Order: sequence, then C-alpha cells, then structure tokens
Amino acid sequence: MVGRVLNRHQQWLCRQLADRGLVVARQVAVSDTAEDIRTAVAESLQRAQLVITTGGLGPTSDDRTREVVADLLELSLVEDSGVIAKLEAWFRSRNRVMPDTVRLQAQVPREATVLPNGHGTAPGLVIPVGAGPEAWLIMLPGPPRELHPMFLDQVVPWLDAHLPTRPVQVVRTLRSTGVPESVMQERIAPPLAHLVERGLDIGYCARPGEVDVRFTCSGPDAPAIVASAEARVRSLLPEDFYGEEDDLLEAVVVRALAASGRTLAVAESCTGGHLANRITDVPGASEVFVGGAVTYSNVPKQSLLGVGTDSLAAHGAVSETVVREMAAGARDRFGTDFALATTGIAGPGGGTDTKPVGTVFIALAAADGVEVVQQRNAYDRETFKHVTSQQALDWLRRRLRASGGRS
Amino acid sequence: MVGRVLNRHQQWLCRQLADRGLVVARQVAVSDTAEDIRTAVAESLQRAQLVITTGGLGPTSDDRTREVVADLLELSLVEDSGVIAKLEAWFRSRNRVMPDTVRLQAQVPREATVLPNGHGTAPGLVIPVGAGPEAWLIMLPGPPRELHPMFLDQVVPWLDAHLPTRPVQVVRTLRSTGVPESVMQERIAPPLAHLVERGLDIGYCARPGEVDVRFTCSGPDAPAIVASAEARVRSLLPEDFYGEEDDLLEAVVVRALAASGRTLAVAESCTGGHLANRITDVPGASEVFVGGAVTYSNVPKQSLLGVGTDSLAAHGAVSETVVREMAAGARDRFGTDFALATTGIAGPGGGTDTKPVGTVFIALAAADGVEVVQQRNAYDRETFKHVTSQQALDWLRRRLRASGGRS
Repeated sequence: MVGRVLNRHQQWLCRQLADRGLVVARQVAVSDTAEDIRTAVAESLQRAQLVITTGGLGPTSDDRTREVVADLLELSLVEDSGVIAKLEAWFRSRNRVMPDTVRLQAQVPREATVLPNGHGTAPGLVIPVGAGPEAWLIMLPGPPRELHPMFLDQVVPWLDAHLPTRPVQVVRTLRSTGVPESVMQERIAPPLAHLVERGLDIGYCARPGEVDVRFTCSGPDAPAIVASAEARVRSLLPEDFYGEEDDLLEAVVVRALAASGRTLAVAESCTGGHLANRITDVPGASEVFVGGAVTYSNVPKQSLLGVGTDSLAAHGAVSETVVREMAAGARDRFGTDFALATTGIAGPGGGTDTKPVGTVFIALAAADGVEVVQQRNAYDRETFKHVTSQQALDWLRRRLRASGGRS
Repeated sequence: MVGRVLNRHQQWLCRQLADRGLVVARQVAVSDTAEDIRTAVAESLQRAQLVITTGGLGPTSDDRTREVVADLLELSLVEDSGVIAKLEAWFRSRNRVMPDTVRLQAQVPREATVLPNGHGTAPGLVIPVGAGPEAWLIMLPGPPRELHPMFLDQVVPWLDAHLPTRPVQVVRTLRSTGVPESVMQERIAPPLAHLVERGLDIGYCARPGEVDVRFTCSGPDAPAIVASAEARVRSLLPEDFYGEEDDLLEAVVVRALAASGRTLAVAESCTGGHLANRITDVPGASEVFVGGAVTYSNVPKQSLLGVGTDSLAAHGAVSETVVREMAAGARDRFGTDFALATTGIAGPGGGTDTKPVGTVFIALAAADGVEVVQQRNAYDRETFKHVTSQQALDWLRRRLRASGGRS
C-alpha cells in the first residue's frame, strides 16, 4: 500500500451494513501481494461469520484475489459460461477483439455463486466457507460504480435471505452547521445523561463548517431511547440541525426553495463556482436555480453584475459595498427571488493587514433588500470555499425557515 | 464502525511513509471498544517493527486508545506537566474554565516521548515496545489538521533518527486522461515486459475520465528501471500524460495558461459551476481565469452570453449551435483568449430518445474560431459533471500544448 488511492469502500460498506444491523468489527487493507491477501483473508475468516473483500477481481496483472482465495479454500477454478458470454457480447458490441486476459475474469471458484456485474466485466462471488452453512466469503469488484449497485441489488437481498436474524441497532445522525463542537457537547450532553445511562452512545463528528451528532443504541429499547434523544436535542436547538443522515445542506436548500416556489441566483468571487457547483449537484436543482456569475476579476463584476466602478475604487473588491452590489445585481439580472453573493480572500496570497487571508463578505438579496455578513474563514483554499458556501447556504436556509419561504 | 467517517488517514499516512521508503504492509480499522482496540494493537505489534495509531487520544468518552495501550503494555499513566501547562494556557487565553475531562489528555504512559500538538490539545506519543530498542508504537491524534503537521514536523525527523537504513523503493505515478484503461495496458505493457522481469511493478488505477499508471520498484537498480519505464511510455504516448504524482489537470491547465500569458473564461450549463470551481481551486488561478457564467436556464444564456432566441428555439439548449454561441459569447464578454462552454443532460431526468441522459456538447472558443465536440457521458450526476469538465480541460491542455500557447 503506497497511499495512491483513497479507501472509500470502508465508509460506504460499513454504513450500508450498519444500516442493516450488521456492524463491521474490523476492516483490513493490505498490499496486493498474494501472501498478504491470503493471510488477511484467512485471518478474517477465523474471526467473522461474514467476510467481504473488495477489488482484485479485474483482468490486469495486479488482480490476484480470486486466485488466492481459490487456493486458500482449496477450490478449483472453473470457467463460468454465463460470464464468458457476457464478456464476449460486451466486446462484440464495441467491435473489438477480446484480449485473453479478460477471460481470466470468468474463472470462478467451484461452489461459488456468481453475482453478475451490470456495470463492468468482473463478476462478484459468494462462497460458502467451511463445513457448516453459517460462514460466508463475499467478493466484490473494486470500482465504486460496479461495487455499489452489486451490493445494493444483489448482496442486500442475499443478506436478508441468509442472515435474517440480526440484533436491533439504531443509528441516527443529526447534521448541524453554525454551532462549534464544544458548544454542541456542552448544550446537549448534560440533558441526555439519563439516556446515556440506559445505553445511548453519543458521537460527535466535527468537520470545518459543520458538526454531526450521532446517536447509537442497541437492544429492545434502542428505538425509544434514540427517538427520545433526538426529540430532546431538537427542542434544545430548534434551528441548528439542517438535516439527518446523508442530507446535504445544498439539497435541503433546494428542497426548501422548491417547496416555497422561490428561485435563486448566485454571484461568486472568492468561492469561484463552488456554490453553484454544490447547488447543481442536487437532482432537480434546475427548478429553482437560474444561474450564477463567477466574477473572479473586476471586469465581469461590472459588466455582468453592474457593480459600480466607484465602489470598486473606493472600497476594493473585498468589501461590504461590492458584495451588496453583486447580490443586488445578480438578483436583478437573473430575475430571481433570492441571490447569494460572496467576495473574499481565499489565500494563500492576497491578504493585507486590514483584510487578512480568510476575510469574506457574504450577501443575501431578497425582495426586502440586501443584507451582508462578514466572516473570517482562515483555512486552506478549498476548505475556505466550502465553509464560505456553507455559511451562505445556511443563511438562506434559516431565512427560508423563518419566512416560511416568503422572499 | 458504522461508516460515518471517511478514512483519509490510510491514504495520507501510507503515502507519506512510502515516500520515505517505508511501505505499509497492513492497515486495520476497528470499532472504538477497548477490546477491539487492544486486540488490533497487540496483533500489529507482533507483526511489525513500527506501528502507528491514529485517533482516540481526545477528551471525550469515546477516546480510549491511550488507556488501552498503557494497560496492554503494562505501563502506568502519569500526568505530563508540560501538556497540563499548555492545556491550562489554551483555556486561560479564551477565558474559559478547563473541564476536568480535558486533563485526561495529559495522562501519558510512562516511558513515552510526548509529541506536542501545535494545532489541538491531545499530544502524540512515541513508545518503545518490548525489550529491544527496535520496535515502536507511535500514537497520533485523529483530526487531519493536527495529525498532518505533527507527522511532518515531528514524526519524520524521528523516523530519520531512529530508522535510518531503509531499502530504496521508487514509486512513480503518471496521470493520463482520454485513454481507456484496457487500451493503456495494451499499449504499454508489452514494451515494458523486459523491465517487469527486472522487478518493475506496473499498477493501473482507473477512475472515470482518467487512468493513473504507477511504477513501483525496489532495490539498487530501482531508480534506473523506473526512469527507463517512464521514458518509454512517454515516447509511446507523448500527448496523453497530463501530469505526475498529485498533479491535477486543472492545475496543469492554469500553469500552461500562465506560462503562455493567456486568459480563460467558462460558460457552463450542465456542469453548473464545476469547471469554474475546479479552476479556482488552483492557487494563482486569478492570474489567468477571468470568470464564468453558470447559465442553468435559458434566460441567462441569452442575457449573459448572447445566445440567440432562434438558436434555442430551433435546436434546443443542448445542441451544437447553442454551445458554440455560449463559448463565443463568453470569450467576447469576458474578453479572454479562450473560452470553454458546456451544455448537456446530466440526469437523472431530462433525457430524450435523440438526446439521452449523458449527451453533452463542449465548445472551445479561441481567436481562430469555435470548435465543438459531442460526448456521451452516461454516469451519475456528479461523475457526469467531473468527466465533462475533465474533457473540456484536457481539450484546452492539448490545444495549448500543440500551439505552444498561441490562441
């Protein structure tokens, strides 16, 4: 392992399994030598009833997992005709000759159940392990676009059929922004102490610009204990949780705009398209998001948004005056109910004594005028953009919440 | 482990260590119960000469690693006066009372060397393990903003002092876009066969829109073998590698624009700000990037970019005609040497029989006119945006390369 690839599988699979009552006790990553793979799989099979491997099933020379597992479990490899037919069709439809190396992917250990790969060539495998019917090795392909649908469409039904009795574990995540982690803990931990005594576990996960609060509890009372904890923190902090589980702030804002029939435009200097990009990541964003101007230099601030030459000269591009004119100009020119504007110094260069790196002005334009807030987001460049867009979106969220959507 | 946090440490630490000749043989993640932590640390110490743990050193109730390790190694915990003084100063400077739980972080196992934490409260620890001087446990804090500087500023010098003789391992990554993984392997593997015989390892890492080729080799000949492999593939594919190691395509494009003194604007429909966001992630982008228009609906396509009403009516927003007018309009209104424009159907909705989801038109405007390419990027929404922006940036990169920067 030389650290060239970020391991996203761990998070994704752990979460999918946890949501189905299967808590992952251990995750192991090893180099792709046969010896390391063999040792890791062998140890895992001794430790757990269900072992899942990802990757190493493809056609290239560093894909060794199938072979290693067959050897470890003393199962011969046989060519699966269904897989071969699918591979041949794939290459035929593209008018290409199938390389011999590709055939390797159709070699499956005897006794394995083949999971067809709807988004790639290497199939997944389910292999019963040992004498009893109670231990299983599931081998899945590495690319997320192949792994995720295979897991959801084929492994989940398999789990429901083969591991039907699972302990009740309740996990609930509430997502907040605008409240520091230490303040969050001070506010909610004491009022929840009686639930912690009954088995509630409270986890805090802080990232720049947001804090997740995660409740975990096991046993028959778990649903009631977690529901009680959630109700309590919501009453303590009625405005600060923007969503639950995987909710993204941008999706919450798009939904709130759609629900109230309002539209949004953005005018971005320092966030450089980050805000528009987050909003347009949300399916259906086109219903509420009209567009944005990324005005990275002064010329388009004037030509696209109508910012005054005098304002730029007198106050500079990073100023309350300019961000106010950017937001008003965007709302006017895009013809929207709301407009958000940002201007600031992302760094690493560009800071001054009076406006150090991290200085940012955010404006929100609505029918009743334009408001401006100043923030100091002293982070690396990408985090600066994320936190600034987070503050802008959260401001609009709170406004929509307070007004019931009225602009 | 319930999958709520993405494990970025694995990648970061593996890479930092690999770059210093220490290849990580195994990475283990466990739940935060004392038993699982204890087992994992004990097994790792039997397996390796150097074990690094991350996380579990903080003040909250789920931070158990320090205590577990002291118990496992039969070392008593003592309060470190230096750490206490630092904690007290931190709280005093903020006029806050130090909670008792915070003091726990100053409890260090006897014999441990304390690594002061310049960006947080929990110190790191270096603990000699067993009788000989040759095995070590290094415990580091979990938050990346604390972990990264502590590793670079304190652990790296420690490694140089205590593990001075390391085998030479050379790792070299070349990054390409526009060449499918299978084609890449067909093109480069046979001509490198003689180097593989001498110990060269070739890894392929394919992500949507790009393929990394990674050469790894150990031993005294490793530098020459890897250099020879790199020279060979560069001569085989002289235009397809856009960078090395961590190079990002957007940074390569910004550097090429800066080197040739040219400027860029973007006009984005389907990419929704993604392209501008990638470009403005690059420090110094403001020297070459003037701005962008995110024209998500038809109105700003007309008002901001001058796209014709007739063009939209006759061909639709997703068409060669419209993308051509978007690029020309952006180049004209932002006053730049180049403009890139995108329009397409990101999905999941909006596809038709003649223009299915994934259809995209990309235009590149320069002094000598506007060119358009059509692509079919049938991915999920975010991947669609990334691959489309990758194609647009790579097109500009190849153009700058071919023209030596002339627009």
